[in-house]
Amino acid sequence: MRGDPFKPAARVAGQRADVWTIVNEAAAASPKQPIVNMGQGFFGYNPPEFVVNAAKQALDKVECNQYSPTKGRPRLKKAIADAYSPFFGRTLNPDTEVTITTGANEGMLSAFMAYVEPGDEVIVFEPYFDQYISNIEMPGGKVVYVPLHPPENGATQTTSAAEWTLDFDELKKAITPKTRMIVLNTPHNPIGKVFSKEELQKIGDLCVENNIIILSDEVYDRLYYVPFTRIATLSPEIAALTLTVGSGGKNFYATGWRVGWLIGPENLIKYVSAAHTRICYSSVSPLQEATAIGFEQADKEGFWEQSKKEMKGKMDLFNQIWDELGLPYSDPEGGYFVLVNLARVQLPSDYPFPDHVASRPRDFKLSWFLIKELGVAAIPPTEFFTDQNAHLAEDWLRFAVCKDDKVLEDAKERLRGLRQYIK
Amino acid sequence: MRGDPFKPAARVAGQRADVWTIVNEAAAASPKQPIVNMGQGFFGYNPPEFVVNAAKQALDKVECNQYSPTKGRPRLKKAIADAYSPFFGRTLNPDTEVTITTGANEGMLSAFMAYVEPGDEVIVFEPYFDQYISNIEMPGGKVVYVPLHPPENGATQTTSAAEWTLDFDELKKAITPKTRMIVLNTPHNPIGKVFSKEELQKIGDLCVENNIIILSDEVYDRLYYVPFTRIATLSPEIAALTLTVGSGGKNFYATGWRVGWLIGPENLIKYVSAAHTRICYSSVSPLQEATAIGFEQADKEGFWEQSKKEMKGKMDLFNQIWDELGLPYSDPEGGYFVLVNLARVQLPSDYPFPDHVASRPRDFKLSWFLIKELGVAAIPPTEFFTDQNAHLAEDWLRFAVCKDDKVLEDAKERLRGLRQYIK
Repeated sequence: MRGDPFKPAARVAGQRADVWTIVNEAAAASPKQPIVNMGQGFFGYNPPEFVVNAAKQALDKVECNQYSPTKGRPRLKKAIADAYSPFFGRTLNPDTEVTITTGANEGMLSAFMAYVEPGDEVIVFEPYFDQYISNIEMPGGKVVYVPLHPPENGATQTTSAAEWTLDFDELKKAITPKTRMIVLNTPHNPIGKVFSKEELQKIGDLCVENNIIILSDEVYDRLYYVPFTRIATLSPEIAALTLTVGSGGKNFYATGWRVGWLIGPENLIKYVSAAHTRICYSSVSPLQEATAIGFEQADKEGFWEQSKKEMKGKMDLFNQIWDELGLPYSDPEGGYFVLVNLARVQLPSDYPFPDHVASRPRDFKLSWFLIKELGVAAIPPTEFFTDQNAHLAEDWLRFAVCKDDKVLEDAKERLRGLRQYIK
Repeated sequence: MRGDPFKPAARVAGQRADVWTIVNEAAAASPKQPIVNMGQGFFGYNPPEFVVNAAKQALDKVECNQYSPTKGRPRLKKAIADAYSPFFGRTLNPDTEVTITTGANEGMLSAFMAYVEPGDEVIVFEPYFDQYISNIEMPGGKVVYVPLHPPENGATQTTSAAEWTLDFDELKKAITPKTRMIVLNTPHNPIGKVFSKEELQKIGDLCVENNIIILSDEVYDRLYYVPFTRIATLSPEIAALTLTVGSGGKNFYATGWRVGWLIGPENLIKYVSAAHTRICYSSVSPLQEATAIGFEQADKEGFWEQSKKEMKGKMDLFNQIWDELGLPYSDPEGGYFVLVNLARVQLPSDYPFPDHVASRPRDFKLSWFLIKELGVAAIPPTEFFTDQNAHLAEDWLRFAVCKDDKVLEDAKERLRGLRQYIK
């Protein structure tokens, strides 16, 4: 008989303290309360009123409180098909080419569960959204990493997020006969890069050549400040291999709603749906209904334009502080994260970092220091790199600007305290 | 290079038409519209007003629309710990002994992901809730089935759900050195059996003896019509091995809310949380908040007593039709499903069943016939048995009574049409 019934499975056993735990615990223990939290990418304000009202009305309807079909509520699938058909340049079939998931996260897990067999390889760019890794490993996949290289002069001057670049020779070398999928993310978290049409064409061509499924995480798809291309639109051959991921939580400022979706060809979508059914059965009904109504009304409300304009305004408002301090940042082309280079910040040599921070790259120390000394929380991005490539980001921190303007102003005021440490 | 990029992973590939698809398609195509749907166990009415109002109020709060902690909202964990501590006879620690999941379904998947390695065995009683099987197989587990045996005279007279019995010799023989977990379900779906204290003690003792984790699905825990025992309360040794599963959707008539939880010892719960984080990251925030408020106010509202009384009333109201028709049923001890024995119903020998129904056991034909001829949908329970044991249930159908009383009366009126087929 088995000796230790409490031994966890390998897939959940290794638990190095993750960045969220470290940052949240530091924030809770900081003397600078309340902390200005620009760490996690949750919104500091509510979804738009027309979407909140839609959710409240859904709660009054019996069928909106009960199980939805496993593939999603017909109204939401139709609203998404209607909203995205113009972007995709063809009429999407809501019944076969759209499937609803419990947030984009579980949607991506469903895609990996649908197509990754043990030993299959999945290519992921560094830095990556950390959930990708466990989601690929859960079905037994092996992650193959390809780094995005930071701008050469990123430590000395403000650059564009476009200057984080993929080395296509490295990408080609990463492809093997076992490569099953590649994960894209555009607009990119944490870099804020919007992949150019040319970059996407090259990636797409490589995938067609090698029969690789493209999982394109486009959850920040309404927040781009340069032209935005969806890889699924580049050719029918690329479209046939592409699953595009979207998020109601990101689109409508409601990260706690857990409504996501995948769009793609019927023969790919149907197994994503099958996996989703096995994972979550169905997704949250009243908030699916509210998201449907959100899509139906967003254009009329002028929401998408307003959303983009407001977020770009927040980004520019916040980044003034770096210009003021003379610290360079990577100016985002999309999304709501900015990477700031703090190479010039000199941490006191005798500063008492706890072991679990001292043992990590310099960005963890920078994050800890900012939380404890200034009361501003930001995320160390080396968490989103392999150990091998962590050095690429050890001087950067990620700030989320999806917060009220007064929070951003408060953060700026606190960050002025950095001046004394800048050499 | 890989030949067929579209080949799905084995875990999602085999797709025999499932019972829900068959029943829903038959219902949609029936000439008797609208169908009285007593198939799936969703509620035909809304959650109580105090819970719906709580959800609406949560939607006005910024933090209730954003990510919740991966282990769940502190308010909900506390409300559950407070509500369940009296049942468990000890003070539950909300931070370490309760974890919130995206419905009970994803909670159980999280438990399997946390403890099942490929090749490990998990014991499941037949009939089973069908999601258990794919949830166990997803991490590579092997399901080992042990049947619950129907009452010997179930075809000729109404019996108690208690008379569906476990053969403990069969259970003992099913235990091997690879047995990692056992799944219990009480009150049981579809049988309506509430396992007796004696049965649970024997099961628990076997698990302690063999170091087997007990996953006790108690989602119908507020709907019992005989004394209800929680296996986790039987001894400290059994408690140390038990994860208890609960469901806000089942408790508060909101199957579409996807709020569930597991209660258990810290060393088991922490890896369930870790798995849940990798699967869904976090669960739906505003409906977690509403569920918390539901628990805080339910006693004061007299909700639990009312809920039980109402459901028992519906059960008795509906089952009058079987007494009237002289068809025996298995009188439920809990939950909202009733199994009815239709051995005496003679289907026309030349009735045109489609192939995908004709090839299944007799209960599929009974279900099809009732949908098409009477316009009443019920679920064939052999779907919840292995092929080997399907014969145990081929004369039964499962009806869900969690519907408005007028729907139940409508169903009864339609079911009177069965009389001409009863021999």
